[in-house]
Amino acid sequence: MQTPITTRSLFGPGPTNPYTEATVALGYPLLGHLDPLFIERIDHTCDGLRKVWGTQNARTLPLSATGSAGMEAAFVNMVEPGDVVVIAVNGLFGERMCDVAARCGADVVRVDHEYGQPIDPQRVAEAHPSPAIIAVVHAETSTGVLSDIAALGQLKGDALLLVDAVTSIGGVELRADDWGIDIGYAGTQKCLGVAPGLAPFTVSDRAFERRVENPRSWYLDLGMLGGYVGAASGAKRTYHHTAPVAMIASLEAALDRILGEGLENVWARHSAAAAALRSGLQERGFELFAAEGARLPSLTTVCVPDGVDSAAVRGYLLEKYSMEIGAGVGKYADTVWRIGLMGPNATVGTAEYILMALQDAVTATR
Amino acid sequence: MQTPITTRSLFGPGPTNPYTEATVALGYPLLGHLDPLFIERIDHTCDGLRKVWGTQNARTLPLSATGSAGMEAAFVNMVEPGDVVVIAVNGLFGERMCDVAARCGADVVRVDHEYGQPIDPQRVAEAHPSPAIIAVVHAETSTGVLSDIAALGQLKGDALLLVDAVTSIGGVELRADDWGIDIGYAGTQKCLGVAPGLAPFTVSDRAFERRVENPRSWYLDLGMLGGYVGAASGAKRTYHHTAPVAMIASLEAALDRILGEGLENVWARHSAAAAALRSGLQERGFELFAAEGARLPSLTTVCVPDGVDSAAVRGYLLEKYSMEIGAGVGKYADTVWRIGLMGPNATVGTAEYILMALQDAVTATR
Repeated sequence: MQTPITTRSLFGPGPTNPYTEATVALGYPLLGHLDPLFIERIDHTCDGLRKVWGTQNARTLPLSATGSAGMEAAFVNMVEPGDVVVIAVNGLFGERMCDVAARCGADVVRVDHEYGQPIDPQRVAEAHPSPAIIAVVHAETSTGVLSDIAALGQLKGDALLLVDAVTSIGGVELRADDWGIDIGYAGTQKCLGVAPGLAPFTVSDRAFERRVENPRSWYLDLGMLGGYVGAASGAKRTYHHTAPVAMIASLEAALDRILGEGLENVWARHSAAAAALRSGLQERGFELFAAEGARLPSLTTVCVPDGVDSAAVRGYLLEKYSMEIGAGVGKYADTVWRIGLMGPNATVGTAEYILMALQDAVTATR
Repeated sequence: MQTPITTRSLFGPGPTNPYTEATVALGYPLLGHLDPLFIERIDHTCDGLRKVWGTQNARTLPLSATGSAGMEAAFVNMVEPGDVVVIAVNGLFGERMCDVAARCGADVVRVDHEYGQPIDPQRVAEAHPSPAIIAVVHAETSTGVLSDIAALGQLKGDALLLVDAVTSIGGVELRADDWGIDIGYAGTQKCLGVAPGLAPFTVSDRAFERRVENPRSWYLDLGMLGGYVGAASGAKRTYHHTAPVAMIASLEAALDRILGEGLENVWARHSAAAAALRSGLQERGFELFAAEGARLPSLTTVCVPDGVDSAAVRGYLLEKYSMEIGAGVGKYADTVWRIGLMGPNATVGTAEYILMALQDAVTATR
């Protein structure tokens, strides 16, 4: 028997509830992946992605898998065995970068930071005299921390700057070109307000020229994918794999929704919602986990108060409000909550609703 | 501006028009990927996949990318550098296997067959005395040919049998366990009647024990994925990546639809539709491309008659009927058409409709 159809308020680290436009578009009549109308659709989608990335990169496209595959694509296409890759680690996704890069044969230079703190651009830039790549997470989903990419971009020297923007794209200021990002990957299920399943990706000409010619992954081979999405303007489209056409229609609709509202307005909406959530939490005596000044608008991390059972609170919210908030990660699994206000959920009203429900849950489960 | 919303009849090599149930489910309220209801959903989906694969394999799951990533997962998890991999090539997807296997460091032994012919199990089995893997495509989408996997399974010896079932699963007889398939991958956009975006995958215990411990791909690492979908019964679910929850709801719904009709009934429906199409084509003087006795029910290949312009016919069908049929592949690009009757399109009535339209197009464009 099919599992029950249930409406959830998704206020965890993602997926978020999608924009209505994105959900509607999932149900559009399907197009073949070589249909002229689909070519138009993918081109329009890539145009929209360039805007949310803040880039002019021709090679900006949605990879046909989730954000984690975006990370893999970034490393597998850029790292030759023995390349020095400096990785700033201040959370789970920095850790994961180390694993993925090592599988590609990288000589990984880790620069560890305390969880909850942003990365230190100076320390990262000085970790090695001539790295091939410097890799960093813009918005750490595991800790709710935002790092200063622009500052690191100014210090990168000849290295390529590789950035994870999974939890910032479409909700938090992101300017790939201005900041010097050479390779960027993201996901759809956070601020873009689309179901998970695609990895928005961008790569500069400078980085593309330094790519691995015959990477270990066929599926994520950027050289082949470029032809498929027509990254080279006017190029003939060559078949690579069958694109996830329904997901791409959904992404197109969400991008139109976001750009119709105005990207800076959408950033402001995410910031206002986060500010309301943070101040409401602090007024109620909760402590925030992420360092002041580096708090991510799209995802707020809260310390679970002493004597409060994290899992019981989350269970109560799910049961009574059909509301999901996230647990912490790793050693903070039971001591931190992660509350996302992303995409259509990024409103002050939603923040107020969460504050009310969380207060109820903490009281009821004590 | 968003691209136009247009209804197409998708009678090419895939994607097909999805089952209505699958489209409806794409619009269900989203669940978080760690929600207990989603765990129920993924388990139910994996149960359904076991049935369409014809397997009891605990490790049967939808990978979070398209069918081509399924191919990559199969090789990247099973091939250590230097392993001998015998690959039966009778079309594009066999060719692709050679590329993907070589990137994993395989010592590839190609066994070439004429395009349009099924693979010769004896010749494939005798190509090497002790291969680690024998790889073969069950249903060659590029040529419309069905090969005898059961016969090869009986000859495989100690080798692992790796099978591409992209264009057979859910529409053509497939019995992974009975036939001795150790590793199988497929896609959702053909007979399963779901949009592209997932790769149904299955791996036997025997194969899983021989897997690469730390494969080059993090995203497709079966050791990690097993924990995520709870392949080990009763195992705690561990977070790996954010599952494409909307696509999985759609796959679940399609599987329920197929199993509700009865898998053997669905196979019979695909066969009857193909038989009507083939005999109608022959009555009208068209020649079929695939060898008699090895014609794939889900995809019929037709020789473009002398003096007929393949592209003009396809353009006419798209323009007048909003109907997509496929071109050929490689050197047959202009001389073969590929007509798919898959999922909800696998009916005799649809076959009659295509015959009428094709006749019209050939006449009108001559």
